[in-house]
Amino acid sequence: MQLLKERILQDGKVIDNRILKVDNFLNHQLDINLFNEMGKEFKKRFASKNVTKILTIEASGIAIACITAQYFNVPVVFAKKHEAGNLSKDVYVSEVYSFTKDRNYLIRVDKRFLNPSDKVLVIDDFLAQGNAVCGLLDIIQAAGAEIAGVGIVIEKGFQKGREVILKKYPVQIESLAVIEGFKDGNIVFA
Amino acid sequence: MQLLKERILQDGKVIDNRILKVDNFLNHQLDINLFNEMGKEFKKRFASKNVTKILTIEASGIAIACITAQYFNVPVVFAKKHEAGNLSKDVYVSEVYSFTKDRNYLIRVDKRFLNPSDKVLVIDDFLAQGNAVCGLLDIIQAAGAEIAGVGIVIEKGFQKGREVILKKYPVQIESLAVIEGFKDGNIVFA
Repeated sequence: MQLLKERILQDGKVIDNRILKVDNFLNHQLDINLFNEMGKEFKKRFASKNVTKILTIEASGIAIACITAQYFNVPVVFAKKHEAGNLSKDVYVSEVYSFTKDRNYLIRVDKRFLNPSDKVLVIDDFLAQGNAVCGLLDIIQAAGAEIAGVGIVIEKGFQKGREVILKKYPVQIESLAVIEGFKDGNIVFA
Repeated sequence: MQLLKERILQDGKVIDNRILKVDNFLNHQLDINLFNEMGKEFKKRFASKNVTKILTIEASGIAIACITAQYFNVPVVFAKKHEAGNLSKDVYVSEVYSFTKDRNYLIRVDKRFLNPSDKVLVIDDFLAQGNAVCGLLDIIQAAGAEIAGVGIVIEKGFQKGREVILKKYPVQIESLAVIEGFKDGNIVFA
């Protein structure tokens, strides 16, 4: 998606030739106009899938999931990372390994919010190692629902997330920008 | 807001005559159509404030903040609750006491995202004890920005949040539904 790539080049910061920081429009300050353009693009790419629900994971996936949901006219469900007192005990659970934090954490979705008749589109802001997305897909499968696809804002193409997902779930993965790597502090798109 | 009150009566669950559970449309599964109606209502109530930015707190505030931002045509900034490796060190910090978890936690906003020229509307899903909102207002004040107001989806009118906020910051607080209490397991609106 050209508009997104231009924005990444304009505002993204590469740290240590390794980390891409896009916190001024994607995951701390949020440019809602850009999010709307991304939502339209996801709708275009998954138009034929008869999506009935969008599933994401807290916290930074919620924003793009909600804006995107408007174009599909469906509700959003977000998986919870943190045990909350008021969360039902009747939940789908999946264990996710976080590379950034080097520990496992549990994600949970109340069983009432995913049904076998659902066609679920997973939306998230980043795809790197693929663990969070796999956790979400495990939950969709546990619910007996159909996976409509996976929509990602920025994919780190030099990490193995896509491969990890496709090995387990042969689904349509659409990333609006795929980064192949960094060269001399610059971003190289695939 | 009538539509919201009807939805709370229809789908809200009162637990132990004390806790209101609205996770099937507000904070786990999200009814984006309803969120749009709430966003329009916030715009109506703060139309004269020349809002330049919406500030909320992760995770469940993000959804309503993003949908609402579309009606003001402004970016959203969300305060982070969890120390992240890629968060800048140059942040506004405020300490918030959580009654539900009985502990203090820090919320952080990168200094680049709030400026003295900003008129900031705080949006959150719940108002109970008022600590999270006060933490956000502290951060707006530290940035030298103007507080445009506070927009809340559901206020627990029987708790002291509104009083706590107004004592420290005499700002406009608009809650779309104010719950006065629970009687025999039923919800009583103010």
